[in-house]
Amino acid sequence: MKRTKKERQRLLTETIEDNPFVTDEQLASQFGVSVQTIRLDRMELAIPELRERIKDVAAKKYENEVKSLPIDEVIGEIIDIELDSRAISIFDVGAEHVFQRNGIARGHHLFAQANSLAVAVINDELALTVKANVFFVKPVRAGDRVITKAIVRGQHNEKNRTYIDVVSTVNNDTVFKGEFEMYRTKGKGDNHETSN
Amino acid sequence: MKRTKKERQRLLTETIEDNPFVTDEQLASQFGVSVQTIRLDRMELAIPELRERIKDVAAKKYENEVKSLPIDEVIGEIIDIELDSRAISIFDVGAEHVFQRNGIARGHHLFAQANSLAVAVINDELALTVKANVFFVKPVRAGDRVITKAIVRGQHNEKNRTYIDVVSTVNNDTVFKGEFEMYRTKGKGDNHETSN
Repeated sequence: MKRTKKERQRLLTETIEDNPFVTDEQLASQFGVSVQTIRLDRMELAIPELRERIKDVAAKKYENEVKSLPIDEVIGEIIDIELDSRAISIFDVGAEHVFQRNGIARGHHLFAQANSLAVAVINDELALTVKANVFFVKPVRAGDRVITKAIVRGQHNEKNRTYIDVVSTVNNDTVFKGEFEMYRTKGKGDNHETSN
Repeated sequence: MKRTKKERQRLLTETIEDNPFVTDEQLASQFGVSVQTIRLDRMELAIPELRERIKDVAAKKYENEVKSLPIDEVIGEIIDIELDSRAISIFDVGAEHVFQRNGIARGHHLFAQANSLAVAVINDELALTVKANVFFVKPVRAGDRVITKAIVRGQHNEKNRTYIDVVSTVNNDTVFKGEFEMYRTKGKGDNHETSN
């Protein structure tokens, strides 16, 4: 039994509300219609595309979670975070981020994404970068989506230091790696708000 | 014999044309008038202040000199450069460069100034950052003027590498240090345009 358009659009709205991360392809297969039909439905219903939905969800979810800086100061969009443990962000490289001459992304933008994620992952009101060793492994270009993962790998409570490894990939290829040494006001163990 | 205002302004214009780096204090002492009088003269004659004159002179002078990127892509203003040897830039930290919460300059701006100077100093059409070890020594704040010096300290022709040390200071205090490993298309020795 084929659903009416109205019925399909009602179910579509519900499905996306339940799972904002569902793709147009998955919806098309679920409702037995073409991807183009799903896109038109979304346009009529004013439901943003997946990428925008991810950003919205992430911004709402992590707004109150990140402690060391306001979320709008993070370069890139945080899509997952567990304070003092791990964090992931995405950054879409645009024409404004590359060298005019060769179209390669400028190093400080990749550094900025990685560095601000290293700040964001810290469960403290104050986090400052002390030292960073970074490697630009492969050129990144406009249109690339950089996925950056930060992993807290150690700490030194007496020195108020946290050590963070960061890896950035484009299509699963590593493009950037960094080791960040961060200063924070208190060690993990001093912080009674965490379960660590 | 006291000069007329007209005579003083004629001489003032000439003096600044001859040496754009002369300060208002030096001009006041030379003409036996107050610094305030010099400022008013400059305003009447539409001669910009020293800082702007430095930027103008630098932009004109280095526009054709820097090879690895267009000068407007350098973060900060280059005020001196000798390709494949050394370079200096200044960067005035504004409110837009600091963390809202603590007023401390964000690391990626200091990194950007240092990194783009490391690119600019290279006498090659293509220069890319391979690796950087950076140290944020002291917090920098809005209103600070960061003076960054890059020194080429070595190279490896077979690997097409140039190694550059960068130090940034505010009022002669070191605030940032970095070691940059750069990729270039040809070694210094291959480049017949230089005298190295």
